[in-house]
Amino acid sequence: MAYGLARRELRPRVPLRPGEGDKHGLTSLQGLAALSLDALSSVAYGPEAIVLALVVAGTGALTATLPITLAITFLLAALVVSYGQVIAVHPDGGGAYAVAKTDLGGTASLLAAASLVVDYVLTVAVSLAAGADALASAFPALGRDKLLVCLIGLALLTAVNLRGIAESARVLMLPTLLFIVSILGVILLGLLRSHPVALVGTDRPVHATEALGALVVLKAFSSGCSALTGVEAIANAVPTFRPPSVRRAQRTELMLGALLGVMLIGLAVLIHRDHVAPRDGVTVLAQLTAGAYGTGWPYYVTNLLVTLVLALAANTSFGGLPVLMSLLARDHRLPHLFGLRAERPVYRYGVVALALLAALLLVATDADTHRLLPLFAIGVFIGFTLSQAGLVRHWATQRPPGWKRRALINGTGAVLTTLAGVILLLTKFLGGAWVVVLAVPLLMLLFARIQRYYTAVGRELGLGRTPDPPPRHLGSLVIVPIGEVSKLARHALGAALALGDEVVAVAVHADPARVRALEEAWERWNPGVRLDIVNSPHRSLVQPVVDYVQRAAEGGRQVAVLIPEVEPVHRRYEILQNQRGLLLATVLRARTDVVVCLLPYRLKL
Amino acid sequence: MAYGLARRELRPRVPLRPGEGDKHGLTSLQGLAALSLDALSSVAYGPEAIVLALVVAGTGALTATLPITLAITFLLAALVVSYGQVIAVHPDGGGAYAVAKTDLGGTASLLAAASLVVDYVLTVAVSLAAGADALASAFPALGRDKLLVCLIGLALLTAVNLRGIAESARVLMLPTLLFIVSILGVILLGLLRSHPVALVGTDRPVHATEALGALVVLKAFSSGCSALTGVEAIANAVPTFRPPSVRRAQRTELMLGALLGVMLIGLAVLIHRDHVAPRDGVTVLAQLTAGAYGTGWPYYVTNLLVTLVLALAANTSFGGLPVLMSLLARDHRLPHLFGLRAERPVYRYGVVALALLAALLLVATDADTHRLLPLFAIGVFIGFTLSQAGLVRHWATQRPPGWKRRALINGTGAVLTTLAGVILLLTKFLGGAWVVVLAVPLLMLLFARIQRYYTAVGRELGLGRTPDPPPRHLGSLVIVPIGEVSKLARHALGAALALGDEVVAVAVHADPARVRALEEAWERWNPGVRLDIVNSPHRSLVQPVVDYVQRAAEGGRQVAVLIPEVEPVHRRYEILQNQRGLLLATVLRARTDVVVCLLPYRLKL
Repeated sequence: MAYGLARRELRPRVPLRPGEGDKHGLTSLQGLAALSLDALSSVAYGPEAIVLALVVAGTGALTATLPITLAITFLLAALVVSYGQVIAVHPDGGGAYAVAKTDLGGTASLLAAASLVVDYVLTVAVSLAAGADALASAFPALGRDKLLVCLIGLALLTAVNLRGIAESARVLMLPTLLFIVSILGVILLGLLRSHPVALVGTDRPVHATEALGALVVLKAFSSGCSALTGVEAIANAVPTFRPPSVRRAQRTELMLGALLGVMLIGLAVLIHRDHVAPRDGVTVLAQLTAGAYGTGWPYYVTNLLVTLVLALAANTSFGGLPVLMSLLARDHRLPHLFGLRAERPVYRYGVVALALLAALLLVATDADTHRLLPLFAIGVFIGFTLSQAGLVRHWATQRPPGWKRRALINGTGAVLTTLAGVILLLTKFLGGAWVVVLAVPLLMLLFARIQRYYTAVGRELGLGRTPDPPPRHLGSLVIVPIGEVSKLARHALGAALALGDEVVAVAVHADPARVRALEEAWERWNPGVRLDIVNSPHRSLVQPVVDYVQRAAEGGRQVAVLIPEVEPVHRRYEILQNQRGLLLATVLRARTDVVVCLLPYRLKL
Repeated sequence: MAYGLARRELRPRVPLRPGEGDKHGLTSLQGLAALSLDALSSVAYGPEAIVLALVVAGTGALTATLPITLAITFLLAALVVSYGQVIAVHPDGGGAYAVAKTDLGGTASLLAAASLVVDYVLTVAVSLAAGADALASAFPALGRDKLLVCLIGLALLTAVNLRGIAESARVLMLPTLLFIVSILGVILLGLLRSHPVALVGTDRPVHATEALGALVVLKAFSSGCSALTGVEAIANAVPTFRPPSVRRAQRTELMLGALLGVMLIGLAVLIHRDHVAPRDGVTVLAQLTAGAYGTGWPYYVTNLLVTLVLALAANTSFGGLPVLMSLLARDHRLPHLFGLRAERPVYRYGVVALALLAALLLVATDADTHRLLPLFAIGVFIGFTLSQAGLVRHWATQRPPGWKRRALINGTGAVLTTLAGVILLLTKFLGGAWVVVLAVPLLMLLFARIQRYYTAVGRELGLGRTPDPPPRHLGSLVIVPIGEVSKLARHALGAALALGDEVVAVAVHADPARVRALEEAWERWNPGVRLDIVNSPHRSLVQPVVDYVQRAAEGGRQVAVLIPEVEPVHRRYEILQNQRGLLLATVLRARTDVVVCLLPYRLKL
């Protein structure tokens, strides 16, 4: 479910050479391979979610799988048509946040941003959990440690993304194509074989606790809607296509819709015909795989492929959320640090934030896919609805030829996704959707508060207005804290003499004998700088210097404190040095308004 | 087991008013109450350790409890006499580390320091674990979460000690006296009642797996030696006594020895007479308590008292280890940061280090007292032996009247403690003592390496020699990174103009439109400082500035980079500010040799 920012994330993160972007743009087929990952991988958990929701009404209720899947496919078709128009109107992509910001204004864009954040995090959690299920279907021993498997996978993804991979859309093509071939193979061979599926996993006794009423059907429908996540990815990535990019992207969207529809219906037919019920230790998809390929090596390969594709789907969030967070930071809606890139072209704070939130979710739900799914689709449907609604508004204001027909298409999409979203919310509220219902407004509130704070700071700093000329100080005084007479002191005094009109060294000593020794050594050295001794009856080294500095800062002069730091060659020695200087610097910065200067002195060891 | 530094730790941590120390010195009885905590609290686990070691040879073997306790009491008597001499020779206390440093030299003092560190950590772990046992004896429901109880207790102790309590010896007196009275009451009432102990806890089936041979007896003896930990505390705290302090301290040491001996023998007689075997859910001491007082409220009060006294015993380590670490830091044997006190008169790094190590031990042993005990006594016996051996050496060099007799006493003490230490080591090696055997030399190696490093650094810094005069720079250049024209920029330029002979502002922008806007605003403002724009094709903000600074630093001038920081009023807003400036400062300090200056700009919100 690469939602909202696929365009950026699929661009290689190392900068392109000029012109490289266009020349190497994606063809329709390449685009399908690169951008359909999220949507297609949801066949690993979508159909299973329907089966699980229906089985509470007994195995007989599983016959409803097919009609429900058909309804979901209908919704899929509406979305595909509707997104064809999104592609045409927003050829530079940008995702729900950008679209909402242009077409719907402030609050809607906050809503889009909040639901996107929730969704990116859930994509990681759901994909990893479903991936662990698929892996456990092949290797049952791993079934007991699913949470651990998920957390190890998460740690790997985080490490890779912190390093900053030069990720390319082409890398994704091979696994995606193999995945498509395997799943279509499962459907075809499954349909050809007339006997029931080969039994894998262990039987799970089914007790019907409810009748097959409207509520169960609606619950199954809303559970199955998790299969629709990810169909917006192509619309967000239009600029990555080779020109004519709009036409190619629309064609790719159609192909994605057709493929996903075929897969969903095909799997539902197999479930229907073979009465596939949930079994312990294997996924529904793994049961169908075993039914088609048997339990030999193709079974293992397919399960591993499903795991890989789900892991790659999780990885797309690591491309998307940090970029979204950097955009929010640029709009002053998140701390600016999320817009920082230091050594590597990676938004490391965003990556870490995503990893922590996903880990939290996985731990809270014990990496159970079906406890995560109720949270999942809500945010996606908010995005769907906002995109469609934005387009309706666009048509109504621009009024190009045929705008009414277009508005009708997008309006239908918006109404259907709203309806599906409301069903989702109502049927899943107690099952976990309340978390999202709580999280989204809280995030919106957070964004709004941060924005308000930054605006107030900007006002206080007089941004946009011409300030007075810089103040003139009555000269400068540089204070150098000194421990002993050494080359370090010499180095520091040299720098201080270059910077200050007046320089004074200050030493703190509680022990009179050491004070005398220092004063004698200072006289012998005679560096041309006065040495002041401050008394520290309580053996604290920091507070006496701070007091001294505060007194010195009372005049009209600019006061600076210059703290020399010993820098060892090896990082492992750093804990042995400078702690006193850094502590002094921290306290001075907190308590005084003087300039705090740090000067490195590099050791040879 | 306040080992080595009780003197410092029992002094109130806020400085005394002049003369207060002498006037308020401890009497013998007060000293007993204040300093016997560690030694006396070990009756909570020492006798139990003997019983547990013997029961592997069947319940019949428990008759050996009494003779073994008598042997331990004999060792106690030798220690008490021997420590009487330590008190006379080292009237200013100081503990094993100080004694070993004066009398035995470098390696022995490293050994003393390492074993002290191990012991302080173990004191915390063992006392907390035994305290949780005592608590669980009163409230069986807590028995399942003993580790949690210990960790909560540890967190409380850490928090209290990080705040820095003005701890006074007198606070300890009431609980210690109540504890002594309760335990003596248990023994007296237990002896008066002729019927067997009231049954508490649940029966534990006993299977004799070994015959009662020499090995079992030696194991039981070495287990029971854990009851001797803490008898050195008084010798370390001589200066806290009211004059004549040596005489008072010696008298207190005798009283402690007598009390501990009576308690150990009394409890052993009860165990012997009533055939007390280990039971699940209660400690041996709790069984004896129930036998004496019944299971009414005196039983609960006594168990709570034992818990409290054990917690206070754990707390003494928080007084001792951080001070020892600060002494080691002053001797350049630990990172100097352990000698740092910032705001409060507390060595906070030492407190945190102790808490982390104790938590590690508790988690590793699942807070099981009897898995911790084998590690415990080894370090104590190293300290015992070093103190005695140092004194033998002292007598042999000083040769005062009667030195041979004195040397014989301390020599006997040293031989006995060495013997007991070897027995401990041999019988407990696989049971956990190997951890100490590994940890002590590793710690010694660490101390020695750190000392070697600091010596080398001191040589490189030319400590003790008179350096050349400070270098003269060809003027100074102050570089001010600028984001926008604002009051922040004005503030920074003001300070820079006071400090530098030349000042230049530098801005990084990837976006040409923003560059133009900035240049126009700069011209309108016209602050009298040149603005340089550096290009950032990769959108990284830090590296272009670093490159610019490195080029500027190539001349003979002293270069400084002045980074203004927005300081919000509320700490919770700090995450919203300055991250870019701090990042730049960090990278500049790592990569360049220029002065890095930070200038706060305080917001009103």
